[in-house]
Amino acid sequence: MIIEDIMDKEEILELIKGGSVDISKLKILLSDMNPVDIAEILEGLEIEKVLHLFRILPKALASEVFSHMDADNQQSIVEALSDSEIGEIVNKLFVDDAVDFIEEMPANVVKRVLQNVPFAKRKIINQILQYPDDSAGSIMTTEYIDLREDATVSEAFDTIRSIGLNKETIYNCYVIKKDRLLTGHVSAKTLMLADPDEKIADIMDTNVVFANTTEDRETIADQFKKYNLLAMPVVDMEQRLVGIITVDDIVDVIVEESTEDIEKMAAIMPSEDSYLKTSIFQHSKNRFLWMLILMLSATITGYIISSFEKGFMVLPILMSFIPMLMNTGGIAGSQSSTLIIRGLAVGEIELKDIFLILWKEFRVGLLCGLGLGIVNFIRVFIFYRNDVMLCLTITLSLLFTILMAKTIGSVLPIFAKRLKIDPAIMSAPLLTTIVDALSLVIYFSFAKMIFGL
Amino acid sequence: MIIEDIMDKEEILELIKGGSVDISKLKILLSDMNPVDIAEILEGLEIEKVLHLFRILPKALASEVFSHMDADNQQSIVEALSDSEIGEIVNKLFVDDAVDFIEEMPANVVKRVLQNVPFAKRKIINQILQYPDDSAGSIMTTEYIDLREDATVSEAFDTIRSIGLNKETIYNCYVIKKDRLLTGHVSAKTLMLADPDEKIADIMDTNVVFANTTEDRETIADQFKKYNLLAMPVVDMEQRLVGIITVDDIVDVIVEESTEDIEKMAAIMPSEDSYLKTSIFQHSKNRFLWMLILMLSATITGYIISSFEKGFMVLPILMSFIPMLMNTGGIAGSQSSTLIIRGLAVGEIELKDIFLILWKEFRVGLLCGLGLGIVNFIRVFIFYRNDVMLCLTITLSLLFTILMAKTIGSVLPIFAKRLKIDPAIMSAPLLTTIVDALSLVIYFSFAKMIFGL
Repeated sequence: MIIEDIMDKEEILELIKGGSVDISKLKILLSDMNPVDIAEILEGLEIEKVLHLFRILPKALASEVFSHMDADNQQSIVEALSDSEIGEIVNKLFVDDAVDFIEEMPANVVKRVLQNVPFAKRKIINQILQYPDDSAGSIMTTEYIDLREDATVSEAFDTIRSIGLNKETIYNCYVIKKDRLLTGHVSAKTLMLADPDEKIADIMDTNVVFANTTEDRETIADQFKKYNLLAMPVVDMEQRLVGIITVDDIVDVIVEESTEDIEKMAAIMPSEDSYLKTSIFQHSKNRFLWMLILMLSATITGYIISSFEKGFMVLPILMSFIPMLMNTGGIAGSQSSTLIIRGLAVGEIELKDIFLILWKEFRVGLLCGLGLGIVNFIRVFIFYRNDVMLCLTITLSLLFTILMAKTIGSVLPIFAKRLKIDPAIMSAPLLTTIVDALSLVIYFSFAKMIFGL
Repeated sequence: MIIEDIMDKEEILELIKGGSVDISKLKILLSDMNPVDIAEILEGLEIEKVLHLFRILPKALASEVFSHMDADNQQSIVEALSDSEIGEIVNKLFVDDAVDFIEEMPANVVKRVLQNVPFAKRKIINQILQYPDDSAGSIMTTEYIDLREDATVSEAFDTIRSIGLNKETIYNCYVIKKDRLLTGHVSAKTLMLADPDEKIADIMDTNVVFANTTEDRETIADQFKKYNLLAMPVVDMEQRLVGIITVDDIVDVIVEESTEDIEKMAAIMPSEDSYLKTSIFQHSKNRFLWMLILMLSATITGYIISSFEKGFMVLPILMSFIPMLMNTGGIAGSQSSTLIIRGLAVGEIELKDIFLILWKEFRVGLLCGLGLGIVNFIRVFIFYRNDVMLCLTITLSLLFTILMAKTIGSVLPIFAKRLKIDPAIMSAPLLTTIVDALSLVIYFSFAKMIFGL
């Protein structure tokens, strides 16, 4: 909840909708608001009104509001603004926000934006745009505070005061020596609690968790989680400080990585855009391949069923249990693989735990299999004229299917990880195919054995 | 990566393993290290060595290391320490860490810990323990800095310096008036950049995003994401400031909530503990219910298959396509439901988007269905002696099954959400049951129509 804001929003919307806009009143209301909320208000309006409001905002606030708008609105605004206005807004953006914005724009807009940004800023933006997607370099920003080892605490405060207003975070200052080599870290907390005459070198922490520009953003998110960081410095190949990553961007990374894992587990190729913004062709493309693979791999189960045709002719009732066995096996396997994939992703499970896991899943499978077997035995016994042989066939098949599915479901992700294949993407189609085929083999083997088919 | 640490870790392990331990050297090495890394080193050692190392740590560092250890190690340590040592360590913990620790301990340990903590701290811990799981109150801490409206900036700095060392975050100070009512917020950045004589009331931001103690932690995580917060104040029913929530705990909440959603989507009841720490009975309990429901609901598909027995006797080949149709339908439906469930969870999709989504999924289903249909037609045509009637039956069934699965898969989570049921938990079993049954109905209808069975 936010103090004051709810009233403000309605007042502003009213002021805007009522034709005659009291600009001075609007200005006061808006300048008190959180830029995120202003961006939200603007997103609901027509472009003329957006531009009108946007122009009455103080320049610094305008840039911040701009960075919180969605790509469509950003594009509309940029297309309506003059060259110099664009330059001013983008120049005031933090570098990481500017890069995020530019990455979403079509080529012609990007060209116009970059042309109007001052040279120094353009150079930095271009540099960051060149880092590979998902690398530390691509999510870092260059607004940070660096201090010299031989500076004093009071000199540090002067530095912060003189340049701090434009830095994304001033709570973590990084200490560098000659050639910008990173040597340490001082938090604002340490500075505030220190004697003004102390040297930075004496109070700095030399134990700095840092990233290389090319490091994977998921690894970095893990370090943020492990060390409870608010920011992390980024260095280049020569250990020179080039940027920082802040926790708010890491929160986004964590959410995006979870979404990607969830999509992969559901046999979907991860999409960069949100669901509604992804075109139907892209959606179809993301889903088609795995559907095709699953459809074709089901040929195997088809053949297994065909091979048992004679058995069905003698005892047609056996057909009707196929979906039950395949579905229960499928869910048993995907439960196991899901838990292992997620455990591997969040670091709770390691490759060396494979035997622990196998033993655990075997016992869980036994417990669940026995429980379900009993329910199933009773059910089949009642519904199918006390046919003990049939009960036995179905129940034994069910128990062995569950045991098989749980063990395969648990080791498959670990094998994938060991082979450096993404466990999430491997499991759904491969697991389904194997479990389906084997559950039928188990079923028909018991049927042949018990009924002598 | 961490400067220096890798060498330190090995040195320390060597020092510890080599019987004669040079305590003064160890002390120096350890006091330079990150507490998270010390906790990691300790977790690999036997309890005697853990205790030995633990006792040579400076008290403040010992508490921090303790808060980063896992529950098993914490329990071993507490059981080996004296009453007064326990009191000292727990008293030095931040309240939220103390609560996390106590929640993991068995009753007898909890009793002993609480008996040895000073009264004031015990009272606060007991209060926080009483907040419902997943509420703001349960994840907040009571170490924060509050300032009076009429204080000056320099007085604020004095406050921070005198009490700041024990506060979990000093970068966000909260402003209160009479009766501790929350009225505003001042960041350390604002304080550092302000004139020392200015009044807090004049520089504070009255637009504060805050939480109530009973608010759901997922809602709060959404606010952190939306406003890029580092901390959020928590107030009671009378708007009195009672605590703060910090971003590091929110990162944990986001990861845990994603894990819960993933487990629910895989038809598993979410577990509090990690995979390896959950007992096999708990694992079985978490998975049994949905397996049972799926197994029993497969009775429906069994009946549908039995009802078509005569058709199979005439044309046994029809049997072998059942797994292919059911699996392709299943994956088509779960792809759609997964995207919608995740979209709802991260706030990209809202209930009002239902018609947009239906129309989108229908077209995606049509595209995928036509693509798969063509592949399938060719495959069946080649493998089954150019039987056009069979090709047509299978291909039409496939197309309609995919269309049906995609539309049902997309609207089911939205209906669930509208009925205030968790979409993640609803979808797997219900969707599978509906899609399986309907895909068979579609298949047999086409078979009857085309072959006149």
